[in-house]
Amino acid sequence: MNRTIYVSNKPLDEAKRIWRQALTDHHFFDRSPTEIVRVDDCLGRLTAEPVFAGTSSPSYNAAAMDGIAVHFEDLAGASDSSPVHLPRDRYQLVNTGNALPEGFNAVVMIEDVHQASDTEVELGMPATPWQHVRTIGEDIVATELILPEGHRIRPIDQGAMLATGVTEIMVKRPPKAVVIPTGSELIQPGEPARPGQIIEFNSRILAGYLQEWGADARRAAPLADDPESLRQTILTATRENDIVILNAGASAGTKDFTAQVLADLGRIIVHGVAIKPGKPVILAIVGDTPVIGLPGYPVSAVLTMRLFVREMIAGFLGLEAPAPQIIEATMSRPLHSSMGVDQFVRVTLGNVGDTLMATPSGKGAGAVMSLVRADGLLTIPAGSEGVGAGEKVAIELVRPKVEVDSTLVFIGSHDNILDLIANQLHKQRPIIRISSAHVGSMGGIMAIRRNEAHLAGCHLLDEETGEYNISFLKRFLPSLPLRLINLCYRQQGLIVRKGNPKNIKNFSDIAKGGLVFINRQGGAGTRLLTDKILGEANIKSAEIKGYDHEEYTHMSVAAAVAGGSVDTGMGILAAAKALDLDFIPVAEERYDLIIPERFIANRKVIAVLELMKSNRGFHEEILALGGYNLRDCGKIMYRQ
Amino acid sequence: MNRTIYVSNKPLDEAKRIWRQALTDHHFFDRSPTEIVRVDDCLGRLTAEPVFAGTSSPSYNAAAMDGIAVHFEDLAGASDSSPVHLPRDRYQLVNTGNALPEGFNAVVMIEDVHQASDTEVELGMPATPWQHVRTIGEDIVATELILPEGHRIRPIDQGAMLATGVTEIMVKRPPKAVVIPTGSELIQPGEPARPGQIIEFNSRILAGYLQEWGADARRAAPLADDPESLRQTILTATRENDIVILNAGASAGTKDFTAQVLADLGRIIVHGVAIKPGKPVILAIVGDTPVIGLPGYPVSAVLTMRLFVREMIAGFLGLEAPAPQIIEATMSRPLHSSMGVDQFVRVTLGNVGDTLMATPSGKGAGAVMSLVRADGLLTIPAGSEGVGAGEKVAIELVRPKVEVDSTLVFIGSHDNILDLIANQLHKQRPIIRISSAHVGSMGGIMAIRRNEAHLAGCHLLDEETGEYNISFLKRFLPSLPLRLINLCYRQQGLIVRKGNPKNIKNFSDIAKGGLVFINRQGGAGTRLLTDKILGEANIKSAEIKGYDHEEYTHMSVAAAVAGGSVDTGMGILAAAKALDLDFIPVAEERYDLIIPERFIANRKVIAVLELMKSNRGFHEEILALGGYNLRDCGKIMYRQ
Repeated sequence: MNRTIYVSNKPLDEAKRIWRQALTDHHFFDRSPTEIVRVDDCLGRLTAEPVFAGTSSPSYNAAAMDGIAVHFEDLAGASDSSPVHLPRDRYQLVNTGNALPEGFNAVVMIEDVHQASDTEVELGMPATPWQHVRTIGEDIVATELILPEGHRIRPIDQGAMLATGVTEIMVKRPPKAVVIPTGSELIQPGEPARPGQIIEFNSRILAGYLQEWGADARRAAPLADDPESLRQTILTATRENDIVILNAGASAGTKDFTAQVLADLGRIIVHGVAIKPGKPVILAIVGDTPVIGLPGYPVSAVLTMRLFVREMIAGFLGLEAPAPQIIEATMSRPLHSSMGVDQFVRVTLGNVGDTLMATPSGKGAGAVMSLVRADGLLTIPAGSEGVGAGEKVAIELVRPKVEVDSTLVFIGSHDNILDLIANQLHKQRPIIRISSAHVGSMGGIMAIRRNEAHLAGCHLLDEETGEYNISFLKRFLPSLPLRLINLCYRQQGLIVRKGNPKNIKNFSDIAKGGLVFINRQGGAGTRLLTDKILGEANIKSAEIKGYDHEEYTHMSVAAAVAGGSVDTGMGILAAAKALDLDFIPVAEERYDLIIPERFIANRKVIAVLELMKSNRGFHEEILALGGYNLRDCGKIMYRQ
Repeated sequence: MNRTIYVSNKPLDEAKRIWRQALTDHHFFDRSPTEIVRVDDCLGRLTAEPVFAGTSSPSYNAAAMDGIAVHFEDLAGASDSSPVHLPRDRYQLVNTGNALPEGFNAVVMIEDVHQASDTEVELGMPATPWQHVRTIGEDIVATELILPEGHRIRPIDQGAMLATGVTEIMVKRPPKAVVIPTGSELIQPGEPARPGQIIEFNSRILAGYLQEWGADARRAAPLADDPESLRQTILTATRENDIVILNAGASAGTKDFTAQVLADLGRIIVHGVAIKPGKPVILAIVGDTPVIGLPGYPVSAVLTMRLFVREMIAGFLGLEAPAPQIIEATMSRPLHSSMGVDQFVRVTLGNVGDTLMATPSGKGAGAVMSLVRADGLLTIPAGSEGVGAGEKVAIELVRPKVEVDSTLVFIGSHDNILDLIANQLHKQRPIIRISSAHVGSMGGIMAIRRNEAHLAGCHLLDEETGEYNISFLKRFLPSLPLRLINLCYRQQGLIVRKGNPKNIKNFSDIAKGGLVFINRQGGAGTRLLTDKILGEANIKSAEIKGYDHEEYTHMSVAAAVAGGSVDTGMGILAAAKALDLDFIPVAEERYDLIIPERFIANRKVIAVLELMKSNRGFHEEILALGGYNLRDCGKIMYRQ
């Protein structure tokens, strides 16, 4: 196997230091290119030199009010009881902004002027010299500093420059960056993807962030895996750009020629950093141009680019690297991490009571949605083995704090209605966001117990009483005042491929036919239901192939069936219907929300309850999913 | 005088309520126009409906590692001591992202594969089902909610949509807004301005802010003051836009036809609000389109638009009005305000010791620079007569807090070197900003005493001792540990017009010739110097015409001379030189910085001191201004 490239494992700090040194050696931060732009076009740009006023503003003595221009000396001693009369040649009508006529030295407001006759005005107050006159340079005097170097231009700054006759200025030219997607497996969005083909969307994400960080970024056409065209493209790109981003080709797969090509063309500064995700990143210099080879997975690529490229752009523009906004939160569940590796974990955040809880928003370097959902990033440093549940952690916010504060934290059993609730709440003003972690019904109860969630979804059948949820609350949340409010009744059943090709009717068919099943995780209500049905049918778990293969949501089970990796799994009708699968009904079950009493008056919880009770359009949306009955939706089933 | 338009004085809250009601009645907030855009072009846009995944991602079972695809069953019982050998047809080489070949159900990482022969691999570990496989829908399952309605799209969101085959989405169309400048006196930037002409820069400022607040804003060509063309333009504009902004024509000057035209075309909802600045604002509806007539002064126009239009744009887009960022500060000097009027004051902010001090950044509705310099806005409510010095006030930030924190507060005598220091510090990383208030030398000493400034500039000559500054410090800051550090020696003299047309040699010439003088304010070192010279020459202040007309900076004095409103004034050579005026030297004086000992270790103060001592380029810049001597620059003249 021809896989000889050695990927090192440099500590992050060291990698950053070496990289910064290499960039400095190649004068990356000294280039400071500039360009002349019209002030009309300079909004948001950075000044490359201080801007001084060209002329004074105002550039003439100007009336500051609508009224008449006078000689202040004429009004000496004027009062209501002994007003002064001015003949036509001793006053002149002026509007705000008019030049003060030659020889005049004050303005009287129109409100204070009485027209005594066609040729005379009467004034009942004296005037002070230059009253209601904007004198030359009152706002800005020619040569005065308007904007310092390195200032980001706002609309008002444009006004100040134009007001003093400055119409062109020198601004910093942002670094030109290009993102080159590589890989023969790439297809364009909208093209149908065959197995093994990957929609090329990374370059859009990467170019978008580069632009946001201040670069002038563009995307190149995807390159097939071919060393020679890679070589040519990199050479041309490094001549035309200040920063070249390759994605992917950073790891050591058989078709990853990138490192070899970069080593031939220039110098590899770092290949492999002790971070997760993002380990195989390549930092290289070709000519004097930095070339960054990012890993192929979108999350790895984004996080790695954030670590190494964001501060390059700031440095190029002479700006400070943006200070991360750090916030303290409490970890809702334990997280393991490898010693020696800086691990970056995406988390959602939510204020539950007085505690800001952090929950991982998903794992896997390919999980784009984990970044879409993320409110923040947790770094588990190389020296740590992980974080315990309830531990305080420092989170770097990637979403404004005000949005985090408006988050309702839902932890518990998964149901498709949650997506609908999330969307409805997001449309409200002020916005309410839902952060939902699908950890099963028991996981939800435990989250409520640990004060980690505002509410939990639960559908736990007590085999002895035949009742849902209540006995579990009494057992696990005995002293907590709470309400149990019904969300829905829903069909549970076996999800099978369209047309039910394996002709599955029940679990016996699965066991006898040696069919592949996919299970839900322990603590899930659906898992309890599965086990109850297996018990009633006297089938041992060992007889079910795939019993140990667990998924966390109904949709994941349905997706596994749709993808053909399994034959069937237990789930709700809505999930089967969403993916156009068939469904063998097994039971109707009750799905309730657990709400601690102290959150009942919470604005976000109230919004959910009102939505459940009163919103007809919302009920129709739910029923359209299929398999739901809303006869008790919003009803209090139990309180303690 | 044909000025019959009645401008009312509605309380701000009432005006806002009436305006919002009128907009609601005309369905302004219900229009919610949408448009379809390509996901590639949707960055920063707002979703107009929820976005659901089109396909699952991954859309096939994919290798998550470089390695080999295997049947996990084949590796049962494998260990280092008893490895399993797989023949060529029981494994397949896969790269990350490859489709898992049909029938295979796990991946073994390449690091764990030993190539035993050309046709056989050796494996020393068992595998679990689906290990290192990204199963279908692992990241996103088709039909899953990706983005709720009303979500602002980020790069990662684009990635998530493209990953699931969504290539076009429906987004909200921003409101179309047009800014129409009106006034026959307007000229374009770059054209030479004759007295009475005004450079048309307001529309750039206004359109810039409209854009920043989310509108699709453009500028129309300026209109001359002519009712018929105004009528036609407004009619067309209201048909083509969602928001029409007129600037100016809101007040009651002779040429302000706007209100009359709007009353003819539609309905004036509000004309005149009890705010300062901004009182004459017009809020009208033509057809169903809101038309806002803003006052002509740039600061009035910006602040008024901020009050009424920003939340219109948010409402049109279905967003909440942006929450102002409020911070508590201490007022550095008293501010008077009229009862019955909400007054908006631009302030600069600076952290001095533990106190955040607010200082007005300039006054006058025409003072664009007061907004350029502003860090925040103070509202003095209608029920208040003003704010006392040292009073706590709530300030709405208009600049990020981090920038405010990096501000060095300078209060005291004015010198042109301060602009150079400000620019040099702004170039540093991290940035240091200077907030400088020019209140004269005594004002600076008092600001230090009240703990309002990090440092103060001072040039007070003690007539008895002939010494600068020290006796004043002993008298007014007797118990404060401080250092007095020299900044420069500088030429003071009489600033006269180019060529000295009135042939001024000294103050006697001014008194005898009846020439017009402009003075500096009480407490200014230059004022003390003026009074000393007058006393020595035995000239009474009443003999000097304009003795009572006070300005606050050297540059304002120079500008008054340049503008011809006065014949001469005392100031520094640098100010005369900047405006190409002539200068009659009167005295060299010493200008020092007062720095309380407790700020000596402050990072910002250190930066100033280092700049003074060591920066050769900086010294050259100063000397180029003219009239400066730096023989003691940075030297400690006194400490206590």
